[in-house]
Amino acid sequence: MTQLEQAKKGVITPEMAEAAAREGLEGEDIRAGIAAGEIVLPCNINHRISRPFAVGRGLTTKVNANIGTSEAYPEVGRELAKLQAAVDSGAHSVMDLSTGGDIDGCRREIIRASPVMVGTVPLYQALVESSRRGRGMVEVTEEEIFAAVEKHCRDGADFITVHCGVTRSVIAELKLQGRVMDIVSRGGSFMMAWVLHNEKENPLYRHFDSLLELVRQYDVTLSLGDGLRPGCIEDATDGPQIHELVVLGGLVQRARQAGVQVMVEGPGHVPLDQVGTNVQLAKRLCHGAPFYVLGPIVTDVAPGYDHITSAIGGALAAWYGADFLCYVTAAEHLGLPDAGDVKEGVIAARIAAHAADIAKGVKGARTWDLEMSRARKALDWEKQVQLAIDPEKAAGLRKQKNEGSQECCTMCGPYCAYKIVNEHLGITIKGGCV
Amino acid sequence: MTQLEQAKKGVITPEMAEAAAREGLEGEDIRAGIAAGEIVLPCNINHRISRPFAVGRGLTTKVNANIGTSEAYPEVGRELAKLQAAVDSGAHSVMDLSTGGDIDGCRREIIRASPVMVGTVPLYQALVESSRRGRGMVEVTEEEIFAAVEKHCRDGADFITVHCGVTRSVIAELKLQGRVMDIVSRGGSFMMAWVLHNEKENPLYRHFDSLLELVRQYDVTLSLGDGLRPGCIEDATDGPQIHELVVLGGLVQRARQAGVQVMVEGPGHVPLDQVGTNVQLAKRLCHGAPFYVLGPIVTDVAPGYDHITSAIGGALAAWYGADFLCYVTAAEHLGLPDAGDVKEGVIAARIAAHAADIAKGVKGARTWDLEMSRARKALDWEKQVQLAIDPEKAAGLRKQKNEGSQECCTMCGPYCAYKIVNEHLGITIKGGCV
Repeated sequence: MTQLEQAKKGVITPEMAEAAAREGLEGEDIRAGIAAGEIVLPCNINHRISRPFAVGRGLTTKVNANIGTSEAYPEVGRELAKLQAAVDSGAHSVMDLSTGGDIDGCRREIIRASPVMVGTVPLYQALVESSRRGRGMVEVTEEEIFAAVEKHCRDGADFITVHCGVTRSVIAELKLQGRVMDIVSRGGSFMMAWVLHNEKENPLYRHFDSLLELVRQYDVTLSLGDGLRPGCIEDATDGPQIHELVVLGGLVQRARQAGVQVMVEGPGHVPLDQVGTNVQLAKRLCHGAPFYVLGPIVTDVAPGYDHITSAIGGALAAWYGADFLCYVTAAEHLGLPDAGDVKEGVIAARIAAHAADIAKGVKGARTWDLEMSRARKALDWEKQVQLAIDPEKAAGLRKQKNEGSQECCTMCGPYCAYKIVNEHLGITIKGGCV
Repeated sequence: MTQLEQAKKGVITPEMAEAAAREGLEGEDIRAGIAAGEIVLPCNINHRISRPFAVGRGLTTKVNANIGTSEAYPEVGRELAKLQAAVDSGAHSVMDLSTGGDIDGCRREIIRASPVMVGTVPLYQALVESSRRGRGMVEVTEEEIFAAVEKHCRDGADFITVHCGVTRSVIAELKLQGRVMDIVSRGGSFMMAWVLHNEKENPLYRHFDSLLELVRQYDVTLSLGDGLRPGCIEDATDGPQIHELVVLGGLVQRARQAGVQVMVEGPGHVPLDQVGTNVQLAKRLCHGAPFYVLGPIVTDVAPGYDHITSAIGGALAAWYGADFLCYVTAAEHLGLPDAGDVKEGVIAARIAAHAADIAKGVKGARTWDLEMSRARKALDWEKQVQLAIDPEKAAGLRKQKNEGSQECCTMCGPYCAYKIVNEHLGITIKGGCV
């Protein structure tokens, strides 16, 4: 039985209890959320996850890091180092998006090594292998697509992205309405190419019941991909995007009925003023399913800084109700990230997630900030570093910028506001720490 | 006559015309905004600014970079390098906050070298000099404070921060209500110390008319400092902060009546869900004066990443109506920034400002993103780098991550969504670029 089936029966599984404990909640809170379809707990029966996290309403916002080989960087070792960087920086999840080298080997090693849930996109492997066999990508067969899904499930993927919503009708809408960037999702562009080339309906949509039956056996969570996510500000929240979201909403209901855990993916590139609309629409049209956003990045003009553009959009999205942030690294739009980019990307996304958790009033979120503020007020530098979201970086900068003395701070020196208030006045202020 | 006095008389000055041209507006738009007190155009009659910028309603969001010596880093050369880094990265303004070494010399060199407006905080110099003469900081006299203001005006400061709102009544409110961090503004903490020690009202408040008379002669814009800005999430939007804001609102009216341009400073540390409230309150209580925020940073826990926490808060604040973002660098809370921190801080704040300008519908803002998107779609790497907010960084990352070939991108290689759509399908989509 899947976590969803057990939740519906009133069973609190060990995974639910553990995920609840990590949030300071009761197992029943998680169970009820899963039963309602508002929380997912991705944990493939073939993957022993040492740190299970639940994703959804009322919980802390989670962060995913995309890793995986590409044709130019096929080495598995490089990806394992990125996995380590992601986990060390506090990612709650990684996705292996490998398209280069030994794809099977890389996925299996990542799943074996990862203490957190692992997501994959089986479609990528199907199209790469078709291409490697010297056929066009679009000549991949329906059976090959499903075989890839099955292999990823068997190998222990905790969730998989499936681009079920790129249907003939959605593609027709895209052709009719037009866009600046067309499709920027790899899976989405491939699925469209496949549908048009083969003049058939998207097999992941047409055979959705078979897909559900397949993933249910392993309790793999479906992450319904947004193949038509906008690739630029100008295309955000347009007809084709929303049409696909409507289609995904119907599939959410079917997955839940089949006992399959399901979440929904979202954009992408969205201007600040449309972020709230995107979250509300996704939650409404997809019946409260956990919402997993990529970024969103709030301007197109900052390659090299998309960890920042996405932290802005991600904070806002999570505050409005998105549950799961996929990081975007500084390498986005330029090339494949390395371990340094991964670390920076995870931290930026965690900052966004935490800022949103404070604003949403998630249990315990403010306590961390309060402890930091008390350490600041007391000029307790050791504690400030300990409490920092990245203690290594805080300690390094502190050292580098205060070579003379670790007692004071080179920004204000003797003209430090804390010192003036703490030392010169000796006034007692309620709530003050000194 | 000040820009404000001329605007009230219907005169469009050359500075107004030039600032308007930079925004694609008419001089009359700027004049009307200045006359209404909703726009300021800081330009001291003693400072020849080659790039004048106006700040306020309906205009692009501007970015300020704080620079200046401290006791630990007194070298003027280091600050001139930071000025250069700020200006090269697109800052619209710098503030010289020097408190170490030759304060007069540093200010004069920065004002001479800067092509953009320069702000200062005369109070800092007054208290440092009092301290250097072996007296307590709080023993600085009223005359010395005003002499420092006059010197900065004469030297060509385009705007000055004055902590007029730290009054006896505001301090009483602070003592009554209490706070975690008390006061974290240097000027604010000093002003409170001065008021309590001398048992006198804040001279910048008590003699506000003299202050107005003094700055009017040089057309120095007043930036009303928020001495009680919250220093942590927990203190945000509390009674003492808002009480000070009410006091500043009254001073805004008096400044306008005296023909003195005025803007208002704001926090600081603010949780995401209170950013909108802070902007709306500042605009309402201060009668639509341009609003200049420091950050705001939306969580306290990320020392080493406060350029990111402040980009999140700044984007939101500017979208809600803040006009001017003071950057926060990665060095904040740890030590004095260097030129590298300055560059990164300016870019992060410019990203926030631009994201907000898109959302606010500021004239021309979206065009930049649209051009970038078209270059992406066309896989025109050269143009993408040219259009990047930081072409140098984009070019560097692009090169570093694509050593084999500059034609493709190592993230997706042959499985690039653009290529699949552009090359394999040959479908024509309205609005597409290929």
